[in-house]
Amino acid sequence: MTQFMNKRENIVTEAIEGTIMASGGRLFRLDGYPHIRVVLRADWDKSRVALVSGGGSGHEPAEAGFVGPGMLTAAVCGDVFASPSVDAVLAGILAVTGPAGCLLVVKNYTGDRLNFGLAAERARAFGLKVNMVIVDDDIALPDLPQSRGLAGTLFVHKIAGALAEQGRDLAAVTRAAERVIAGTRSIGMSLDTCTVPGSTKEDRIAKGKAELGLGIHGEPGVQQIDFTDAEHAMAAMIEKLSVKADHDKTFVALLNNLGAASVLEMSVLAYELLRSDLGKRIKFIVGPAAMMTSLDMRGVSVSILALTPEDEDGLLGAVAMSAWPGCNAVVEPIRLALPDGLTPIRPLASEHHATRRFLTYCCQIMIAMEADLNALDAKSGDGDTGSTLAGAASALLGAMDKLPLADHTQLYRAIGQELSQTMGGSSGVLLAIFFAAAGDAASSGLTMRAALQAGLGRMQEVGGAKPGDRTMIDALHPALASLDDGLVAAAAAARKGANYTAALSHAKAGRAAYVNADKLKGHADPGAEAVARLFEALKSKA
Amino acid sequence: MTQFMNKRENIVTEAIEGTIMASGGRLFRLDGYPHIRVVLRADWDKSRVALVSGGGSGHEPAEAGFVGPGMLTAAVCGDVFASPSVDAVLAGILAVTGPAGCLLVVKNYTGDRLNFGLAAERARAFGLKVNMVIVDDDIALPDLPQSRGLAGTLFVHKIAGALAEQGRDLAAVTRAAERVIAGTRSIGMSLDTCTVPGSTKEDRIAKGKAELGLGIHGEPGVQQIDFTDAEHAMAAMIEKLSVKADHDKTFVALLNNLGAASVLEMSVLAYELLRSDLGKRIKFIVGPAAMMTSLDMRGVSVSILALTPEDEDGLLGAVAMSAWPGCNAVVEPIRLALPDGLTPIRPLASEHHATRRFLTYCCQIMIAMEADLNALDAKSGDGDTGSTLAGAASALLGAMDKLPLADHTQLYRAIGQELSQTMGGSSGVLLAIFFAAAGDAASSGLTMRAALQAGLGRMQEVGGAKPGDRTMIDALHPALASLDDGLVAAAAAARKGANYTAALSHAKAGRAAYVNADKLKGHADPGAEAVARLFEALKSKA
Repeated sequence: MTQFMNKRENIVTEAIEGTIMASGGRLFRLDGYPHIRVVLRADWDKSRVALVSGGGSGHEPAEAGFVGPGMLTAAVCGDVFASPSVDAVLAGILAVTGPAGCLLVVKNYTGDRLNFGLAAERARAFGLKVNMVIVDDDIALPDLPQSRGLAGTLFVHKIAGALAEQGRDLAAVTRAAERVIAGTRSIGMSLDTCTVPGSTKEDRIAKGKAELGLGIHGEPGVQQIDFTDAEHAMAAMIEKLSVKADHDKTFVALLNNLGAASVLEMSVLAYELLRSDLGKRIKFIVGPAAMMTSLDMRGVSVSILALTPEDEDGLLGAVAMSAWPGCNAVVEPIRLALPDGLTPIRPLASEHHATRRFLTYCCQIMIAMEADLNALDAKSGDGDTGSTLAGAASALLGAMDKLPLADHTQLYRAIGQELSQTMGGSSGVLLAIFFAAAGDAASSGLTMRAALQAGLGRMQEVGGAKPGDRTMIDALHPALASLDDGLVAAAAAARKGANYTAALSHAKAGRAAYVNADKLKGHADPGAEAVARLFEALKSKA
Repeated sequence: MTQFMNKRENIVTEAIEGTIMASGGRLFRLDGYPHIRVVLRADWDKSRVALVSGGGSGHEPAEAGFVGPGMLTAAVCGDVFASPSVDAVLAGILAVTGPAGCLLVVKNYTGDRLNFGLAAERARAFGLKVNMVIVDDDIALPDLPQSRGLAGTLFVHKIAGALAEQGRDLAAVTRAAERVIAGTRSIGMSLDTCTVPGSTKEDRIAKGKAELGLGIHGEPGVQQIDFTDAEHAMAAMIEKLSVKADHDKTFVALLNNLGAASVLEMSVLAYELLRSDLGKRIKFIVGPAAMMTSLDMRGVSVSILALTPEDEDGLLGAVAMSAWPGCNAVVEPIRLALPDGLTPIRPLASEHHATRRFLTYCCQIMIAMEADLNALDAKSGDGDTGSTLAGAASALLGAMDKLPLADHTQLYRAIGQELSQTMGGSSGVLLAIFFAAAGDAASSGLTMRAALQAGLGRMQEVGGAKPGDRTMIDALHPALASLDDGLVAAAAAARKGANYTAALSHAKAGRAAYVNADKLKGHADPGAEAVARLFEALKSKA
């Protein structure tokens, strides 16, 4: 799999540089590249307990994305999926730890425990107060005492971070972290493996299968299960979580995108989580969002924490880091009734013989030119322009008795309404807009010509075509412009415009924009031709 | 590709439900499922200009994720990659439009133009003031007058949304939207196509190729180019953008994840964008983040907008919606000097003959048992425990002249330091922690036994092993507990503990945790055996 990276060995430092440059001045780093990659709060004054986390990279935005007021003080970044060195961790601790001390939040992986552990020891030799907590929220392997650290780590960052920001002492911050760790359970599921930079992707998960109980370093899940749909996938995760979820508690959930599930899918999973039985006891939710990823894994993890009042405060506090999506109360979706007006009020039918004759004649003209227009359209398109217009004309004839023929303003709108319901395709909508807008204009007192021109203007605005783009507008625009001079002038202008389209070898709007020049040249645009023929027929009848 | 979805026809409504349930009460919807899918601000009172957007789904979090104070008033959601119906758009307009009117922000696709356009017409027939702007920020097809709408649409939402929130009138909000549209250019690049729900994925892009100039509906890019790395990929996009980027202007950039690029990759792309020549004129950046996705496309788009002071205000205002990652000032990364203390101060060497003899003897014991321990380790591991310990002992012998032999407190720390540098693997780090922590304890005045027990406690905390887990702790823990009763008692306790490990068929820590029971049973843990032998040797010497 090709990836957006340069040299593999620089991917972490380049990503950190990008993160810092786009952070708005919120982040600094230590001058220790390439081996010491520590990102820290720009505004830090060592006046309170420092919160330091980190570990292997590849889990972005964790941990650097969570550095800032109210969460982490510093993040120590190792290579992709590899623990940072003792020196790097020590540098992070020394850079941010003041008299109030420092809490290390470490995900439970051997390398991280050891390197953070030894760094803590070395920092203590300087007289610094350093505590360490190990996050082991994974419940995939119930028999293994060494559970992995997954996205539940973010609960610790947020809650302990809030207390540290408030100025609580190291013992209180540590106790809170330990309480959160004890109350947090996570489980992951994936439909595809991740692509480790510079390595070949392992195609481990067959189509139709999912891995349940996976870590965030590409390691296989505890079991492969049949994948049917989002509902069953979430149910399988919830079943694991619920075994341990005490039934008298309420929870905060964290729904984490492991990297490459689409935002659409994540929302479907949120729906399945929140409408489940467990979901009824989920009072708050963080996400769905990509928070603790496993590179580009098409997977998800769900973490839950049994709520205590003190944790609620910590979770709900706003922070400036965009990687933290906030913690929202879960709500039942509220539905508002549909507004009135979706079914247009049909104007009262009225009779007006001259108008009926005129409209009927127009429709007959359109029906008569069906075959010719189809033949013309077939030269550059799919040969249905004639049938489309004839069909609309027939429908209009059939609706004649229901039209407000005596009220021209209402009539425009009624014709537009009729066309929008009976005439398919873009041209139907555009003509509907033409008549509806003309009706609006007429109702505000404009003359017929001005009203029709207003309709044309709106049709151009919506459709995006202008004269010269090889559409019906090339005939309609000049015809309306000449209408004050009479139908003869209008018909001549329409004809001239329609003929002009035959000289245009490049359509700039409509479906013909995708047709080659040699198929267009020499043939008029069928829409423009229809307009010209209509005006010519009206002229001869006048 | 398997996806986290249920029935294809429900994916959009289920995703909307999930979005609303996780919105913290910020969002309502209209009661029009399945055809009318309108998400709207829960706090809306029609007192100001409404901003309505939408279009096909599959671009999440756009548009529903941007509904809220300061951005959109409502989002009208079509099927995946399909425009919503006229009725759906009209329902959205009618639901939120008051006397101040409504601005429709429409991405430039024919279906959206037509359906939003006709809905606007129908809304106007009710006397509502409705304006419409068409976003056409794509610069991939310079010769096509109908440029597509891409992620630059978010600039419009944010800037026009801020003005609407401030109570500006429809004309002012519309003018701002038009100004932003005129100033925005976007270009996309992808390494892989997206997976349309329920459809087979098209494998259009060969390995080593990228598509430049793509839309957000899975349509092919304007050109396929050779992909080498992130730097050249960004350069190719910047080249397109810079053609049109006036050289006397500064810009805001929006770096958009099209769906499945990893967060790590997006940060590398941010780095490449911001360190480029164009980057030097980018004053603010939005993202990197997934804002206007194309489902799970492994791709990216870059949008730039020439900055004006009025737009700056609109961009920088905070909004509560987590889908908007904020607009940050671009900064040069600031590097802080590494803290002092990374190179530990080596204590002054001092002589103490009894200590030298004792230490030397311990080292000789360790060296003497190399072959036996290796043989024991080979039964359940890779047979190197003896060599690892012997190597560390040899190194310690070689360092004897530099050790502070006369200062036992310093000596513990010095031994820990020596081991951390010379002894590989987890056991080296753990023993380093043991001695460092013992040194700390000794320096605070504890007895030797208490100091060693403090070291053991720390080693257990970091390593995660406890008695009974089949590690060296099974011998060390009882030995130290008996040390006050003399070396004979300690040696007997260590031996008993080591022998006990041979009865444990299940290791709970260390590498042996992954070894089958039948390979473990009957053999002592090599680390525990080493401790027992050491104490036995010391006893016989005492």
